[in-house]
Amino acid sequence: MALLLQQIHLCIVLIFLILPLVSAEDYSLVYTTSCEDTEYFDLAELQCKSCGLFLETSEDGLDCDCVAGYKLVSDTGAPSEKTCQACPDESMVTSDGWNCITCPVAYPLQPNGKCADCAAGDIPVEYSLDGVLQSEYSCTSCQDDTQPDEVCDTCERCHQSVIAVTDDDSCDCPEEQEAGGLCFESSDDLLEYRDGMYDIPYESYNDGNGLTSWYFEENYLAAESVCNSYLNLTSCQLLGNLCVFLDYNQNNRLYEDACYSYQSIAAQTDGFAHGIDGWPESMPWLYYSESADEVLEDTRISTVFTLSPDNENTYLKFVVGKYTINGDFVGYEDITGSTLQLCPDTKTNLDAAFLFGTTYSLSCSIPAQQFWDWPQYENYMYDMYIEFEENGVKYLHAIPLLLENYKDGDSRVNSGDDTSTWVLTRRFFMVDNLSGKITADTLAEVVRYASLFKFEIEIQGQNGKIYTPLLRIRYTEINRENSYESNALQGVSFEVEYSMDLSSYNEDVSIAMGVLSVLAVIWAAVRTNAWRRRAGMITIDIISMFKYFFFLCGTLADVFFIVMFGCGLYWLIFFREQSGVYLVLPNSDEESSFIAYISVAYVLKFFDLVHLIGSQCLVDIFFIDWERPKGRIVQSNEPGAENKGQIAPVSAWRMFFVANEFNEIQTTRKINVIFQLFMVILFLDVIGFEDLASTNPRAYVNTDEEYYTGDDSRILRFAVSSIVYLTIALCQWVFFTFIYERFVEDYLKNFVDLCSMGNVSIFIHLNRCYGFYIHGRSPHGKADTNMKEMQAQLKREEDNLVGQRGLLPNSEQQTFEMLVQLKLREQYDKIMQPLTAPQERGQRSGGRGSVDMERSLQAFQTMNKFLSAFLDHSLRDLDYIVKDKLLLERILDMEFFDPVDKGFFFNDDGHSFDGALFHGHESTLLVYDVLFFSVIDLIFQNYMLSAVLTYLMVVIYSKIRDAWGRSNLANKTLVDDRFLI
Amino acid sequence: MALLLQQIHLCIVLIFLILPLVSAEDYSLVYTTSCEDTEYFDLAELQCKSCGLFLETSEDGLDCDCVAGYKLVSDTGAPSEKTCQACPDESMVTSDGWNCITCPVAYPLQPNGKCADCAAGDIPVEYSLDGVLQSEYSCTSCQDDTQPDEVCDTCERCHQSVIAVTDDDSCDCPEEQEAGGLCFESSDDLLEYRDGMYDIPYESYNDGNGLTSWYFEENYLAAESVCNSYLNLTSCQLLGNLCVFLDYNQNNRLYEDACYSYQSIAAQTDGFAHGIDGWPESMPWLYYSESADEVLEDTRISTVFTLSPDNENTYLKFVVGKYTINGDFVGYEDITGSTLQLCPDTKTNLDAAFLFGTTYSLSCSIPAQQFWDWPQYENYMYDMYIEFEENGVKYLHAIPLLLENYKDGDSRVNSGDDTSTWVLTRRFFMVDNLSGKITADTLAEVVRYASLFKFEIEIQGQNGKIYTPLLRIRYTEINRENSYESNALQGVSFEVEYSMDLSSYNEDVSIAMGVLSVLAVIWAAVRTNAWRRRAGMITIDIISMFKYFFFLCGTLADVFFIVMFGCGLYWLIFFREQSGVYLVLPNSDEESSFIAYISVAYVLKFFDLVHLIGSQCLVDIFFIDWERPKGRIVQSNEPGAENKGQIAPVSAWRMFFVANEFNEIQTTRKINVIFQLFMVILFLDVIGFEDLASTNPRAYVNTDEEYYTGDDSRILRFAVSSIVYLTIALCQWVFFTFIYERFVEDYLKNFVDLCSMGNVSIFIHLNRCYGFYIHGRSPHGKADTNMKEMQAQLKREEDNLVGQRGLLPNSEQQTFEMLVQLKLREQYDKIMQPLTAPQERGQRSGGRGSVDMERSLQAFQTMNKFLSAFLDHSLRDLDYIVKDKLLLERILDMEFFDPVDKGFFFNDDGHSFDGALFHGHESTLLVYDVLFFSVIDLIFQNYMLSAVLTYLMVVIYSKIRDAWGRSNLANKTLVDDRFLI
Repeated sequence: MALLLQQIHLCIVLIFLILPLVSAEDYSLVYTTSCEDTEYFDLAELQCKSCGLFLETSEDGLDCDCVAGYKLVSDTGAPSEKTCQACPDESMVTSDGWNCITCPVAYPLQPNGKCADCAAGDIPVEYSLDGVLQSEYSCTSCQDDTQPDEVCDTCERCHQSVIAVTDDDSCDCPEEQEAGGLCFESSDDLLEYRDGMYDIPYESYNDGNGLTSWYFEENYLAAESVCNSYLNLTSCQLLGNLCVFLDYNQNNRLYEDACYSYQSIAAQTDGFAHGIDGWPESMPWLYYSESADEVLEDTRISTVFTLSPDNENTYLKFVVGKYTINGDFVGYEDITGSTLQLCPDTKTNLDAAFLFGTTYSLSCSIPAQQFWDWPQYENYMYDMYIEFEENGVKYLHAIPLLLENYKDGDSRVNSGDDTSTWVLTRRFFMVDNLSGKITADTLAEVVRYASLFKFEIEIQGQNGKIYTPLLRIRYTEINRENSYESNALQGVSFEVEYSMDLSSYNEDVSIAMGVLSVLAVIWAAVRTNAWRRRAGMITIDIISMFKYFFFLCGTLADVFFIVMFGCGLYWLIFFREQSGVYLVLPNSDEESSFIAYISVAYVLKFFDLVHLIGSQCLVDIFFIDWERPKGRIVQSNEPGAENKGQIAPVSAWRMFFVANEFNEIQTTRKINVIFQLFMVILFLDVIGFEDLASTNPRAYVNTDEEYYTGDDSRILRFAVSSIVYLTIALCQWVFFTFIYERFVEDYLKNFVDLCSMGNVSIFIHLNRCYGFYIHGRSPHGKADTNMKEMQAQLKREEDNLVGQRGLLPNSEQQTFEMLVQLKLREQYDKIMQPLTAPQERGQRSGGRGSVDMERSLQAFQTMNKFLSAFLDHSLRDLDYIVKDKLLLERILDMEFFDPVDKGFFFNDDGHSFDGALFHGHESTLLVYDVLFFSVIDLIFQNYMLSAVLTYLMVVIYSKIRDAWGRSNLANKTLVDDRFLI
Repeated sequence: MALLLQQIHLCIVLIFLILPLVSAEDYSLVYTTSCEDTEYFDLAELQCKSCGLFLETSEDGLDCDCVAGYKLVSDTGAPSEKTCQACPDESMVTSDGWNCITCPVAYPLQPNGKCADCAAGDIPVEYSLDGVLQSEYSCTSCQDDTQPDEVCDTCERCHQSVIAVTDDDSCDCPEEQEAGGLCFESSDDLLEYRDGMYDIPYESYNDGNGLTSWYFEENYLAAESVCNSYLNLTSCQLLGNLCVFLDYNQNNRLYEDACYSYQSIAAQTDGFAHGIDGWPESMPWLYYSESADEVLEDTRISTVFTLSPDNENTYLKFVVGKYTINGDFVGYEDITGSTLQLCPDTKTNLDAAFLFGTTYSLSCSIPAQQFWDWPQYENYMYDMYIEFEENGVKYLHAIPLLLENYKDGDSRVNSGDDTSTWVLTRRFFMVDNLSGKITADTLAEVVRYASLFKFEIEIQGQNGKIYTPLLRIRYTEINRENSYESNALQGVSFEVEYSMDLSSYNEDVSIAMGVLSVLAVIWAAVRTNAWRRRAGMITIDIISMFKYFFFLCGTLADVFFIVMFGCGLYWLIFFREQSGVYLVLPNSDEESSFIAYISVAYVLKFFDLVHLIGSQCLVDIFFIDWERPKGRIVQSNEPGAENKGQIAPVSAWRMFFVANEFNEIQTTRKINVIFQLFMVILFLDVIGFEDLASTNPRAYVNTDEEYYTGDDSRILRFAVSSIVYLTIALCQWVFFTFIYERFVEDYLKNFVDLCSMGNVSIFIHLNRCYGFYIHGRSPHGKADTNMKEMQAQLKREEDNLVGQRGLLPNSEQQTFEMLVQLKLREQYDKIMQPLTAPQERGQRSGGRGSVDMERSLQAFQTMNKFLSAFLDHSLRDLDYIVKDKLLLERILDMEFFDPVDKGFFFNDDGHSFDGALFHGHESTLLVYDVLFFSVIDLIFQNYMLSAVLTYLMVVIYSKIRDAWGRSNLANKTLVDDRFLI
């Protein structure tokens, strides 16, 4: 039993081992591309098979034919089942292969198995007209001006010109009178051959000497002669096409070339087609007779174009007249899709090129070999028109061609910008792989193709019409030796560009800029004046000049930014929202002034920022401690007995705390910059507002990928990014001002609160006589106490059991702007001298000496007393009054009255001291950030990179402000920077 | 003189006014597309011109012909200069137009100007064989098995089959015996006509009933008959092609259709071509005889493919055998460029499809009308092969076709995933606009095209070979009524997809996941145990279970992340760096498990984060104030006399300051998250590391746009983003740890410093018995003093004149981990009861009652004394020892000994207390951030959006931690949150 099981197991294993071997079929076959002479290629089985007896491979290789001298007897369709039979001696197989026919003595059997050929002008006869096999092969002569046809089957009439010229019945024309299949009366009608007549001066071939073109050799002479003598339409077209191959050469007349011939014949014609001066009757139109400026100013095209999709004039209807190189007219063709675009793409994208207003650019690289075999474009010539309708009649308006390769002498006049030297022409090709051939059967040595194909369309302005568009073409030569063999990639570009006369716009910008700049200069002067008053200056010194410079930088930067933002907004709104195309974006040249303005604005704002940080980091600040010692201490717990009976020290920790907090709020911004940048990225890149910067007027937010979007305009990029940036900033500002600071947390208010609780006032001198005062005197009279008492104080305050915190009795006003007498400031400086002077020495010696320290602390106490007294109105000659600022004073941010007798304390909105912090200068910082963001984007065209760098920039200047501000604070307040963490 | 000048001025003005009017040429012409009958279209001037006397427009419109009854007399080439002459009565113009010939009585002149037609089988005679005009028109009968040729010019032999079947000399075959131009012996050889035989069951036409195809009507019967009787190669191919049009229908046999005919004939053939079971001799190969599994496991293709560009086996050489629909063999064609790709693109991009290893997908939308006229693809049938070479011989290996439209009964067996039901076939077309025609001249009613064309290639693994690829095609029907008229866009897609057997990889992942998960479970248990020890727990209660759950979440999340990161790294490195293609990325189905793991990891990490924040925000914290009152106060300055002789209060401001700073460092991270995110964006998006996530193995950072990049793989996206994220984080970590914290600023150290200066120690209880202690006792013994003394103290410390700050004498160690006795904690809780209990009541009543406050302050002082005593070793039964942690203890983050007798204070690295801050848990937060970033990216495939949302997420959890932590701090330390700003 076990044995049996084992055997079964073995069997199963074997089956599984063998099974794959058995069932595996081989699905491969030998790749056969050519068969033996006696074989045919079986198209069903894809292999060679033997033909059979007396059979050999037919011409296409797929069938079998009887071998020479054998006639076909039966044919059932299968190649190998044909049967053949030998013809009798001295007979040959008829041309249909089914019969044998005897060769007569006159035409004996030849070694190739055929009877001897008939004489020239004779045709062989095997069957009679009614299909009866003749008894023997015979020849018969063609009569009455006829000649054998191509297959030598029947006699056909010879060409009319031969009949007209020759007298006999034959079709022979004297060789010297024959050209292009026509027979001329005299050999004088024919162009005389000269050396170099068929040369084309290609630059890339034979060191720029060009080659002798086979196609010119074949056709030039005949075309010239026939066109000249008969004005044959096709020949004249061909002649014109040859001239196009020569780049309309008009000057380098080493010999008579096709263009010369064209012009000589054109000069003899009677009139002009359609009354157009350059278009000779019955000839192709190659040159314009007017100057380029005149042609391009033409406003004949009456179509009013729009952008709305329900209107029919949304497409530019370009039409070409298409000719073969040989001169046949193929017909009109609408330019849509890939008609004239060498780059492959979907038809939707390709057609976007002709959607009016779309700045279009499609470039690609094409393997060189494709240019040698491109049936769609090779061998055609085109004349460009645009279609328009007037009073129900359709017209074609000729579009001039600016061929960049055109040479006047040695200079390429058409590739420059000087329109007065331009020579406009008409006809073009896309790919020419014909004229560069040396022989009929070889590949062209040189191929030329339109590497740049560009429509330049100038719009008239508000009426939605256009001037005559210009077609700009640049041909590029590629060489068989270099390009074909390596199959190198060749660049191709198709563009449509719109322009308009921007002079009035530029003028408006200049005016706005000028007027506002003047205002900026005045405003800077006003601000300097206000500053001088605040700084207590009397004469105009060098510092005033510097101040004026910095103020001017700030105001000018604002002006530049506002004007450029306005421009951007103008372009964005009117360009994006137009229903017709009345506005075209400035091109990259015209953008340069815009870029320059932005860059200058950035640089100016940078100086403004430096000024802001500098002046904030140099403020004079003093913490006034209202706390009085609690009394003298006895029964001290301290070990040293000498303390007994001393005055209880007032703890410095309240001041440390306040200084620490002040340090922290120095660089806090009104808005959250990080959130700002992330939101900007979110809106621009993720949600897709970036798409609004497209030069395509039909682009919208997050445009479908199927749709052509086009490149970005830098002006629109600036407009979109700054709008998004400022809008988000505005939203943040509103949120923080009206919601967050009211309902969640106002850290300025918290700070003032802290001052009150700590019984510490702050005296900030932004300028010599101007500054801010935070009144932090505790209503409880003391703050330097233990937790229990602090709790009790807070409780009392909550229950309204104490007086109010304000400077004036029964007021809540704790923060003031102040303008004090110069006297006060002088006093201040005098007291502070030990604090400022030694500090410099201290820095030199590497530490503050203890003697200096002693003097500093002394000064510090003196100052505390002095300012306390001042605030308590206890100084006889130094007093102040609290008042409201006038509205105009507020608006202009200056004071109208000098503090002669008394200093002024102006009531403020509770946070005027943020003028000494980043918080109060959000607008300056914001504009700086936007400008930095924009400048980076103008350089790299990348919003993301701009955001990253803006972040780094914000970090850098905040760190500078922070570090510098901290050291200033430590120096000015004597609070060790170990407490400013 | 003035008058003269004025006149000259006037003249100049006039000239400038008139000049534009004079010179403005009109370059427009009427758009002429059709001319009158008597006009020709002048191709040079693009306008209609009159033909002249007796002339009318020729057929192409570009020339003139003589009107009927007129012969040509002269023709110089110009259309209008032809002259014509009327023929005499009863004569007609010869077919060449140059002569008149008399009509005999037998063939009288007809109204159309011609003599009467000859009888059937006769040919008209105008000229003799040698070109002599006959005297009159005559007809002659074709003899000897001949018939007039197509142009009725000569007699030609009739078809061999007619000669064989009929006995007479005529070419007439009885109608019932004729099919496809052949004559059959008997009508039995022909297929009998049945109703519906020519129907194609299109789904989109006539409510799914399909239509009667004109092409089938014309060809099916003949093809079947000829193929069946003669095994004619072309007819059999045609028959096969008809079957392809029917989607290889094998089952729905309402009638005998082309596929049925094909199979019947195939069944009668003698053998098989190339020994392939499904390929009948002389017939096309349509079906595979083996099952799909067997065919696709075939490893016959011996090519070893590589990625290196210097090897020649980098391209997949697909070859098609191309047939016309009529059955003619066009030849072999290599599939490159647009051979089989309907979407337009540059050849470089299109060829990328066949670059081995490139996962390729090109989709586009094509206007429907293009399918009705697409010479490149219509009317061809293809058989797909792949070329390979073995021992110098080239082979073609057949590639099976999986036609998704194939139906077995009503079920589309080929569109499912079950390979066992698949039916593999061979032949396909790209666009079929022939079979859907109802009549010869109308447009097809239904067009079918290959909307999905996809190569599915499975690689064998390490040897660089492939299994037999599969070609998957899906045809889409479009309807003339709906699609052609509206020219709707039609989707087209060409794809190449690689796959490999990933079971071993999946197994490895499962093993890694399993093993590490077990470790995670154990580790979580260990950590829970450590926690229980620290929490002083004895029994396992529900809280332990919760803790275990949270620990498990954390460790499992780490494990998942590590394994998935490893997988991503594996794919990124080995896929990107391979020289041959040995590895293929998982497809989107196989990616799903990866995505699931990541998502689960994120969810688990989320719980971990919640746990972290929760436990940090519930810590018990106590500030120990070492300051002793300075003594009793006499001569108080305060107004209230009752203060006199009281103990001088110890200022609470040091504690406020310390609490404020502690609050600030709670959410500070080890690394800068904002910088992190901006750098991640910079590297991924701006610098272009994103490109590494491409499925194309040849993609590199910032790949050239000219180059095909392909879609992104989600695994690679995860790998690239997490590598970049973690690398930047690592760099930041290194920078902050080794540079910034050492040389610039270490805010934890600053904080400890502050504690020392403030004479405040901090007792943090993370768990009941475990926590951290910051020893802040001032070496000066006091800190609550004025600025002067503070400065002096700082100076003394700088000059090393005081003792060190450490807890132990002469040590600097200020920070400790501590594990204290449960007793201590019980005592602690007892003392703190008033602080914790009333707080709950207080919250209910909306404020803290003054009585409660009193009790709290009392408890607070008691606690201060208690802890001071404990730290001073003054408690008899509560003591502690300071020791170092064992290495293993450090590594495992747990303690081996229970604090029974004495508590343990472990020396630490100076910042162990960051375990209660975000700073100490950077790894958890970082992994959470990376996972969040990755999950968002997996959903939206957008790194930028991920960064923005990650930023928001970080802000949200930081704010929660901040707010909750602050309120905890305020509650636990009695510091009013007005001081925590």
